[in-house]
Amino acid sequence: MKALARTRISAPHKWELASLGRRVPRSLRQARDLSTARRIVATAEDIFAEQGLAGARMDEIARAAKVNKALLYYYFRSKEELHRFVLETLLSQLSARVGEAVTDTPSASKRLSAMVDNFFDFVLAHPNYPRLIQREIMSRGPNMGWIVSEYYRPLHRWLVRLIEEGISAGEFRRVDARNAAVTVVAIMVHYFSAAPVLRQVLGHDPLRPREVAKRRDAVHDFLEHGLFRPRA
Amino acid sequence: MKALARTRISAPHKWELASLGRRVPRSLRQARDLSTARRIVATAEDIFAEQGLAGARMDEIARAAKVNKALLYYYFRSKEELHRFVLETLLSQLSARVGEAVTDTPSASKRLSAMVDNFFDFVLAHPNYPRLIQREIMSRGPNMGWIVSEYYRPLHRWLVRLIEEGISAGEFRRVDARNAAVTVVAIMVHYFSAAPVLRQVLGHDPLRPREVAKRRDAVHDFLEHGLFRPRA
Repeated sequence: MKALARTRISAPHKWELASLGRRVPRSLRQARDLSTARRIVATAEDIFAEQGLAGARMDEIARAAKVNKALLYYYFRSKEELHRFVLETLLSQLSARVGEAVTDTPSASKRLSAMVDNFFDFVLAHPNYPRLIQREIMSRGPNMGWIVSEYYRPLHRWLVRLIEEGISAGEFRRVDARNAAVTVVAIMVHYFSAAPVLRQVLGHDPLRPREVAKRRDAVHDFLEHGLFRPRA
Repeated sequence: MKALARTRISAPHKWELASLGRRVPRSLRQARDLSTARRIVATAEDIFAEQGLAGARMDEIARAAKVNKALLYYYFRSKEELHRFVLETLLSQLSARVGEAVTDTPSASKRLSAMVDNFFDFVLAHPNYPRLIQREIMSRGPNMGWIVSEYYRPLHRWLVRLIEEGISAGEFRRVDARNAAVTVVAIMVHYFSAAPVLRQVLGHDPLRPREVAKRRDAVHDFLEHGLFRPRA
């Protein structure tokens, strides 16, 4: 965690209630100022990423966020509710960030490249995200259902459609679009989810900005040659 | 777990003491017949994959393996020792299987393709492997040190060397070999480590033999176009 925290470039907790869907605690809807809630969420994100849902303690979150426990429980009635809200703020930002790549240009290859850049920007800004999600997957927690139905399945379908459009337009090779979508996600995501192992394998911190920049270049290069159709 | 068990094609627990290095319990070295130990290890593998090291209980392993607890503790003095031995048997088989691809041919592209096939064969035969390893990574258990130094780092270096040889021989494009090695691993491994999520995203079992075969084809296709140099 300490290594991750050191490489954090920025943590702009820019979530807005409007983009968070149905599951916003009522206390937040009624708040005039979200700055305290944002501080709680940012602190909780660090602690959940480090210790997991079971290991984290509300006492510690309150202390680290410099709020008293009554106020913490006013905003979030339980540890589970706070944990779920942390995941939701991250996923809504990821989804919005990736979605930015949709509308700019009709070119499928340009939209795919923009999506890769947006994903890298997101993970650099939110280094806790891969660990929080992996913990959730491994624990088969109650959140996987809505994470998949509201975020991952729409993202996967968006990516499959994008690849199909690229094939139709002659920009991409004729690949199995569903498998290609899995491949695109794999070469973006695995590097971050395997970071603790890669650190030991490579002998350096793979989350250093310079290393992440090299990885981003490698992903672009690999997609360009593996997916894009060679120009005549 | 049940879904995984159903898709298991074979579980040839073919580990031999000779290939397991230093950390073999003395009781096993002295055993005339390894069949009971193999049954214990196969059972423990299932239970550790399902419940993790903390959740698994030696009572349950003994009962499921149909041995009494005294015999279980004769072979493996502690749950931790049994868990470590389970990981070691899997990794030694993975390493041997991948290593088979090394010597057959001088062609780097053929060796890389053979390695991909061998990896897929290994994971089909050992569907617990991705989950056991992910649990180990997430828990930052005491085993990651030797797993990396004795297995993952040598495999990574072998792959980097292979890619460098392919570049020198003009078989591969001029890529960043270290990043390309990470990419090769990512497109092979992510599919299996993300299987619980992919099952929900795709709406079918990604570990069905037919789906795994399609995935294998997609990996070959992507490496061929993303890494191999186009033939003139």
